[in-house]
Amino acid sequence: LRKNFYIFATAVFFILKTTTVFAQAPSTDEDAFFIKNIYSYSLTQGNAYTWLRDLCARAPGRVSGSAEAAAAVEFTRQIMDTLGLDTVYLQPCMVPHWVRGAKEQCKVVGSPTQGDMPLNVLALGNSVATPEGGLTAPIIMVMSLEEVEKLGEKVRGKIVFFNRPMDGTQVSTFSAYGGAVDQRVKGPAVAAKYGAIAVIVRSVSSTKDDFPHTGVTVYDDKTPKIPAVAVSTNDADKLTLLLKAEKEVRLFIKTNCKTLAPVQSYNVIGEIRGKKQPQEIILVGGHLDAWDVGKGAHDDGAGCVHSMQVLHTLHNLGYKPNRTLRCVLFMNEENGLAGGTEYARLSNLRNEYHLAAIESDAGGFTPRGFQTEAESSVFIDKMKKITRWSPLLEAYDLTISKGGSGADISPLKSQLGLLIGFRPDSQRYFDIHHTAEDTIDKVNPRELHLGAAAITSLLFLIDKYGL
Amino acid sequence: LRKNFYIFATAVFFILKTTTVFAQAPSTDEDAFFIKNIYSYSLTQGNAYTWLRDLCARAPGRVSGSAEAAAAVEFTRQIMDTLGLDTVYLQPCMVPHWVRGAKEQCKVVGSPTQGDMPLNVLALGNSVATPEGGLTAPIIMVMSLEEVEKLGEKVRGKIVFFNRPMDGTQVSTFSAYGGAVDQRVKGPAVAAKYGAIAVIVRSVSSTKDDFPHTGVTVYDDKTPKIPAVAVSTNDADKLTLLLKAEKEVRLFIKTNCKTLAPVQSYNVIGEIRGKKQPQEIILVGGHLDAWDVGKGAHDDGAGCVHSMQVLHTLHNLGYKPNRTLRCVLFMNEENGLAGGTEYARLSNLRNEYHLAAIESDAGGFTPRGFQTEAESSVFIDKMKKITRWSPLLEAYDLTISKGGSGADISPLKSQLGLLIGFRPDSQRYFDIHHTAEDTIDKVNPRELHLGAAAITSLLFLIDKYGL
Repeated sequence: LRKNFYIFATAVFFILKTTTVFAQAPSTDEDAFFIKNIYSYSLTQGNAYTWLRDLCARAPGRVSGSAEAAAAVEFTRQIMDTLGLDTVYLQPCMVPHWVRGAKEQCKVVGSPTQGDMPLNVLALGNSVATPEGGLTAPIIMVMSLEEVEKLGEKVRGKIVFFNRPMDGTQVSTFSAYGGAVDQRVKGPAVAAKYGAIAVIVRSVSSTKDDFPHTGVTVYDDKTPKIPAVAVSTNDADKLTLLLKAEKEVRLFIKTNCKTLAPVQSYNVIGEIRGKKQPQEIILVGGHLDAWDVGKGAHDDGAGCVHSMQVLHTLHNLGYKPNRTLRCVLFMNEENGLAGGTEYARLSNLRNEYHLAAIESDAGGFTPRGFQTEAESSVFIDKMKKITRWSPLLEAYDLTISKGGSGADISPLKSQLGLLIGFRPDSQRYFDIHHTAEDTIDKVNPRELHLGAAAITSLLFLIDKYGL
Repeated sequence: LRKNFYIFATAVFFILKTTTVFAQAPSTDEDAFFIKNIYSYSLTQGNAYTWLRDLCARAPGRVSGSAEAAAAVEFTRQIMDTLGLDTVYLQPCMVPHWVRGAKEQCKVVGSPTQGDMPLNVLALGNSVATPEGGLTAPIIMVMSLEEVEKLGEKVRGKIVFFNRPMDGTQVSTFSAYGGAVDQRVKGPAVAAKYGAIAVIVRSVSSTKDDFPHTGVTVYDDKTPKIPAVAVSTNDADKLTLLLKAEKEVRLFIKTNCKTLAPVQSYNVIGEIRGKKQPQEIILVGGHLDAWDVGKGAHDDGAGCVHSMQVLHTLHNLGYKPNRTLRCVLFMNEENGLAGGTEYARLSNLRNEYHLAAIESDAGGFTPRGFQTEAESSVFIDKMKKITRWSPLLEAYDLTISKGGSGADISPLKSQLGLLIGFRPDSQRYFDIHHTAEDTIDKVNPRELHLGAAAITSLLFLIDKYGL
């Protein structure tokens, strides 16, 4: 029975705190009141959870080029059309069209102790298929790309098993992910350089279970494309034990992926035009595509509905922005970044200026704050300005810190605005990331709506005061 | 209210900020390194999750006086015996022995449109039974205790339906809980004063579903004890609609609770004796009892395993404390506070001094920080001292703020130490609080172990530097 949790803002998260003490804060009681309204509206009248539930049901597994991706484009376009925005449109972009094909098979074959032992795997995104009959070879376990480089020709004809886990001692799971994902992204290309015939990679996961985690791999143009799968963390542990116990472990792998001709797809865009400085754009976005095996609830349906909710909340609270507020649902973040690249290309062609761009692509969990980045020539100044509002945001347990923003908005950095990544709690995200388990039941409605409220509040302050 | 709060909070923020900037911070790189070790150990070698899984399996529904409560005492005593502490003992206390009896029944009877409509209910803790054949009466809906006072004799012979929901616009669910729980705690006593024959109360829940949330009710010695049940939020909404549509809604309620003779139970205590100032005690604790319908995973198995993990981690890292570190698993927080009361009584008899007491009783979710309270004569000074370590804790996304600590440790306030409540993320807690859904699958191992690490880190700093 604990009551009366009043939050006192006693602490600042980050290094530039002295600037918070001395810089003039333009924020007022009126702003605090409006932010309170943003939270109340988002929590009790927000549509984000309903939209997300429907998006997951009607456009599950919406990988770029798929029918589901087309459904996601049309579904979100129709929602945006109801939000009372000034304009809603589709921005064409050509996207890769990779298909998984029939379900992968993978097993240990002919183990003296285990016989044939099936393993839970998923082909990596963009990966090629095995020969039609599959392939069989001994595996060789490595813990890093560097180890493959050292082994060199010893991997020839083998299946390379990348087995370095995420570092469980890291508090930030994104840091731990960043420290392990090179095996998945670059492993097949590096192994192919020395004649490996396939790759099996330990799922980049923060938990131990039977679900394999897919994700993109990037081949090297100079080396052959070899088949690559992710194996569940439990099965990776089983393989590890087997390799200790037996002289040689042979795997059978059969994957059926194909890369078809590129497809025309779209970024979905809606905007409210600014009344005073319409030429200054504040973008809020997420990505519409999701891996084929799950429903894309946290990655990144959450970011899409966050972004739509931001504009909807401000519109319904009667807010008339100074700047142009633009919601962008990017296509193809997962395996190509075609949407983000095309958006930036056209924006630069039109000489647009993004004063700020906020991406939500870290899930729909309880908000912790925001991370910022910018060209070094403007970063310190922008950071001073945005941290003027820290006291207002700390009342909602939100901090502002330096860090990565988002893949889709990263090409906008050259416009010299501030790039911002929404930072929700990260502890559960990599349990389900890129798996069949990324489903709506993993999303808590209050947490999702708090995320929308946090982003809306920051966007409101940027719009009102500039950066 | 909001505006005043904000001004107040801002003022406190600047006061404390100033002290953080200018006070000598004793913390060093060595401390940061040790805290990093605490986190690494907790995250990768902590036992808390395993203990909690086993506690939930072997002592589920461990309400005071039950066989399961006895099992919980013995199970945790045995664990503490393995931790390498200086002493482990049981501290006797007499606890109330309330039993639910056979499953409750509740239904709308004779509705012209719905016929008989069953409702999902749970008898409130400490409540009395209906007559053996149950009772039937019309319901009268109210939104507050005050409304009953105004209605007065109009509630005579009726079943009072308390229907005020938790305030969904509050960011802190503990605040929202605090704003609604009076209906459950005091509603039956207030309604009985005017002749009501039973009470049905909307579950104090942050979500809408079919699970009723139990919890204690406190009768008034001067008025009759009347039966009281909590109804699920979905069913409360159904009743609300029915009351709008139909002139009279009649309910049948049958409960089978009993309060048996008090039972001897125990607080489970383990300690590491301090090397330099053993007379200064730093307590870390949670409560061992849990409502009978769930497994007590978050409430408060999490707090118990947090507390044991704190001492285990420090012991296994070879830390030799200056002060006496005491882990206390309190009995009977839910419906009597007998354990906390007896602990404080004996502590005062022995002239003990608790320099600090930390309670974890808000679930096993991702840590957000700590709340502190103390007698006003010492609070500002203690707060200045504890916030010296804010920079160290902010690196782990932890803040220190003023607020409630914990029910079990609250009687220790008169010893003039600092009372501290561990504050995990609160968004999911009241979805499952006091329901059959408070089960181990709602606990994320990393989040649980981060909680233990956060508490261990703060306790280490208090032990090393004092308060």
